[in-house]
Amino acid sequence: MIDIQSMRDNRNIDIDRVGIKNIKYPITVGDRNNGHQHTIADVNMYVDLPRQFKGTHMSRFVEALNIYRGEIDISKFEEMLRFIKKKLKADKAHLEFYFPFFISKKAPVTGSEGMIDYRCSFRGAINGDDEIDLVIGIEAPVTSLCPCSKEISDYGAHNQRSIISLSYRSNEFIWIEDIIEMVESCASSEIYSLLKRQDEKYVTEKAYDNPAFVEDIVRNVTVKMMEDKRILWFTVESENFESIHNHSAYAFVEKDKRISKKAEDIINAGAGMNLTSVYRR
Amino acid sequence: MIDIQSMRDNRNIDIDRVGIKNIKYPITVGDRNNGHQHTIADVNMYVDLPRQFKGTHMSRFVEALNIYRGEIDISKFEEMLRFIKKKLKADKAHLEFYFPFFISKKAPVTGSEGMIDYRCSFRGAINGDDEIDLVIGIEAPVTSLCPCSKEISDYGAHNQRSIISLSYRSNEFIWIEDIIEMVESCASSEIYSLLKRQDEKYVTEKAYDNPAFVEDIVRNVTVKMMEDKRILWFTVESENFESIHNHSAYAFVEKDKRISKKAEDIINAGAGMNLTSVYRR
Amino acid sequence: MIDIQSMRDNRNIDIDRVGIKNIKYPITVGDRNNGHQHTIADVNMYVDLPRQFKGTHMSRFVEALNIYRGEIDISKFEEMLRFIKKKLKADKAHLEFYFPFFISKKAPVTGSEGMIDYRCSFRGAINGDDEIDLVIGIEAPVTSLCPCSKEISDYGAHNQRSIISLSYRSNEFIWIEDIIEMVESCASSEIYSLLKRQDEKYVTEKAYDNPAFVEDIVRNVTVKMMEDKRILWFTVESENFESIHNHSAYAFVEKDKRISKKAEDIINAGAGMNLTSVYRR
Amino acid sequence: MIDIQSMRDNRNIDIDRVGIKNIKYPITVGDRNNGHQHTIADVNMYVDLPRQFKGTHMSRFVEALNIYRGEIDISKFEEMLRFIKKKLKADKAHLEFYFPFFISKKAPVTGSEGMIDYRCSFRGAINGDDEIDLVIGIEAPVTSLCPCSKEISDYGAHNQRSIISLSYRSNEFIWIEDIIEMVESCASSEIYSLLKRQDEKYVTEKAYDNPAFVEDIVRNVTVKMMEDKRILWFTVESENFESIHNHSAYAFVEKDKRISKKAEDIINAGAGMNLTSVYRR
Repeated sequence: MIDIQSMRDNRNIDIDRVGIKNIKYPITVGDRNNGHQHTIADVNMYVDLPRQFKGTHMSRFVEALNIYRGEIDISKFEEMLRFIKKKLKADKAHLEFYFPFFISKKAPVTGSEGMIDYRCSFRGAINGDDEIDLVIGIEAPVTSLCPCSKEISDYGAHNQRSIISLSYRSNEFIWIEDIIEMVESCASSEIYSLLKRQDEKYVTEKAYDNPAFVEDIVRNVTVKMMEDKRILWFTVESENFESIHNHSAYAFVEKDKRISKKAEDIINAGAGMNLTSVYRR
Repeated sequence: MIDIQSMRDNRNIDIDRVGIKNIKYPITVGDRNNGHQHTIADVNMYVDLPRQFKGTHMSRFVEALNIYRGEIDISKFEEMLRFIKKKLKADKAHLEFYFPFFISKKAPVTGSEGMIDYRCSFRGAINGDDEIDLVIGIEAPVTSLCPCSKEISDYGAHNQRSIISLSYRSNEFIWIEDIIEMVESCASSEIYSLLKRQDEKYVTEKAYDNPAFVEDIVRNVTVKMMEDKRILWFTVESENFESIHNHSAYAFVEKDKRISKKAEDIINAGAGMNLTSVYRR
Repeated sequence: MIDIQSMRDNRNIDIDRVGIKNIKYPITVGDRNNGHQHTIADVNMYVDLPRQFKGTHMSRFVEALNIYRGEIDISKFEEMLRFIKKKLKADKAHLEFYFPFFISKKAPVTGSEGMIDYRCSFRGAINGDDEIDLVIGIEAPVTSLCPCSKEISDYGAHNQRSIISLSYRSNEFIWIEDIIEMVESCASSEIYSLLKRQDEKYVTEKAYDNPAFVEDIVRNVTVKMMEDKRILWFTVESENFESIHNHSAYAFVEKDKRISKKAEDIINAGAGMNLTSVYRR
Repeated sequence: MIDIQSMRDNRNIDIDRVGIKNIKYPITVGDRNNGHQHTIADVNMYVDLPRQFKGTHMSRFVEALNIYRGEIDISKFEEMLRFIKKKLKADKAHLEFYFPFFISKKAPVTGSEGMIDYRCSFRGAINGDDEIDLVIGIEAPVTSLCPCSKEISDYGAHNQRSIISLSYRSNEFIWIEDIIEMVESCASSEIYSLLKRQDEKYVTEKAYDNPAFVEDIVRNVTVKMMEDKRILWFTVESENFESIHNHSAYAFVEKDKRISKKAEDIINAGAGMNLTSVYRR
């Protein structure tokens, strides 16, 4: 049977990424308290394709997934990147898992337990020199209470659910749970799935005692990430689903500790405009 | 060219609804202040298909849309239902428009203006006797502030954005804007897109002065709808995107003023279980 | 601490459903081949609230979920409905789980295995007489190939991914996998996650040999469901994401085997218009 | 009334972007045939915030939107960026509009007209030197037909709806409609909203005559964009919603004509790893 994909292409165009997108797959991931947990991932898998080939072999991505789905943790993730690169005969490979991660949390006063879901991701790439780049992402729902509303009002203060999104590169393994705890401490209050009345009083008053603008939340996270020597690079965003508006308040910070400010300026100057890195797609 | 759709089918099965779904279309709808406004609808259009025919003629739905898109208001909506029924040679026809509707609102103290979007819908059907049934839907974002949190806490109270969804059948024309105003008055506070500081103080204090459970919101709307003689039937839902949880609080009420309680009991008894009407798909 | 929820309400309005919506939870469900599988559900839980009470006790829903999440199967589902009704001191209760369900499928020629995800649901209610109503839903992605396009074209035929959605009530337990197999056989071809070239040839030719309009798909499913004595009531929909349009083709059939056509007419007549049951929200 | 936002912050952290996100707004955009068209945008508006300030003034973004919504075209877009930067007393500003854009297309044989919606975007930034960077995005739904399936099968070939997403920077104004036409010509066939039988025969055979892998589609677009001297930089993606799978095939190419390959290598080397630019959030 003819192999169309392996035929020659004459357009002289390398493809940066080609593969499969949005395949749902049951996986297990490492879990600080229980060893591992079962979850379900949306998976993207890509390789580069040199100019001389017409197509890649898509079924091999699913074969790789079949082999590794049993336990996806960071060490396996790197092995999986190497495997895809080799199996697809590629120079570069990309692998992305997006999945809900559950943590059982105790209510602050009664200790009642409930599960909270955090949207997490492992996204990684391997290049021609077999160097691996791994970015881990977490999204933590929290409460934010507006400092301006509190200050100017005789009573009350508008508050709302916010999502803090953190992506990071690190120089050593960190439990997702540890990162989530650091991030949750940066808002007006944590959220819970199960709160009895004494707990509800506690979180209400805690949020009122800790007002935070969307700017404060990303700055609080930035301070923690700058202090943590394991973190090499990070971006943090907060989106506050304002209770008094039908739109969100939003803030974003990116920090790269690997390069000096001076080197950053040279690189940006080299690209012509530092604006260009904002929109990459 | 052969017309496969008009060929005979032998499976002896009538199809309740067949047509096109999720076609995006620019439309204009009636507007209390400006005569009409431009918006964009997600449109579904269906007819029934008698057992003897193999298929319907899908392109005719788009032709009908081309004719009527200029101005979609309630009188045109009924005309359009009749047109589709005739053009598709059907016994019944269904038409559904889902669209954002914009209202310019003034901030409560400074009067600063801003646009708020409300997700609205016109959904209708015509039957074999040419009777027309029209349901109008609106979704209003509001602020809800928790009465329990306010009562048990020494200060503050958790609040959040909520969406109130109302669907209704009426015996006369009602401006969407009038319905939205009635619904918005049933929550702890309205929301706005543009609030200066004096306005923010006002809405913060107003919400604190008007705590409302999700149950209170649907009951407040129910009281208003029961009193309004133009409303024949309605359902009201409120979904509160809790600021202290990662899930929603929710409540739902349905009332049909056209039939007596006694008649309702007979009908439900006739169906064997009144449970069965809950899940229709 | 004051219990606001238990206070008296004077608006004289019963609430049909009140509870929590869209809480994500890890659950296990029964699995024909492996006993059970781990998955993640979006859960809704409601009770009715009599007119005299101001509010329901939301935290009790999460407590119920904590107890039963270990194994959600149909027998447990009924027990859980009874538990919620009792724990919330309610007359009626509703419970809804929406979750991806995975089946390992073998490619038709090479037998290569891959996982396919099916969106499934358990939705149920218990009423004042402790009668339980349970509706099971499955969504199966399939290939549909247009009979008209095949017939009128000298070569080729447009085809696309379709989603067949089936909801049913039954008088005995049926494996989800069995239902899914019945539904998948009603389209032009099944789909797979892993296909080698020989498999791709097979499914391409199979789809071309089995053209099916959206009308054919729902009729094929209807025939199978009418023949299966375990099925008491069902609705079937197919949405074809047309490869030649930017909208979907759609068809829908509902059949209730529990009531005679005559009884149905009486019930509909009693309600004034048989149209009114189309739009319930 | 106290201005909390203008108070001093001591954490010494500049914020890259702060503002409002996902506000829906009716806008008008330029249209090649009709001068302009009405549509509805999801809008994001951000500025940077220097370390010394506690917060930005969110209401000013909505005020800017109120002023400019009348006509959003590229010249106004640049004026609007300058206005926001000045009004918010910022050093940098960002503005993003995402909106459906409608084009009336004639069916290829009968000439029957129908509207197709294309998801488009204007995204731009202004920096401290008042330089403006503008990226325009379009998403075109098309048909793709698999060359491998066609070649190995005795008859038929699987095909499906695909979305081609193109983002570009240009050195002069280009009509969105012109870009969309170039992109649509790179797939197996264009799609239409209204096709009569003769048209359906035409598009079925055209797709079969022009098989294209996801790799071919992005390469075809790349060839056109490399040839067009107005285009300075672009990314192109294609996502094929495979009719034989429940996942997508995907390919991506990025080209920057402004910098030589050598300069690109130096820049990437300066950043330590060329991998790091893949994941920026």
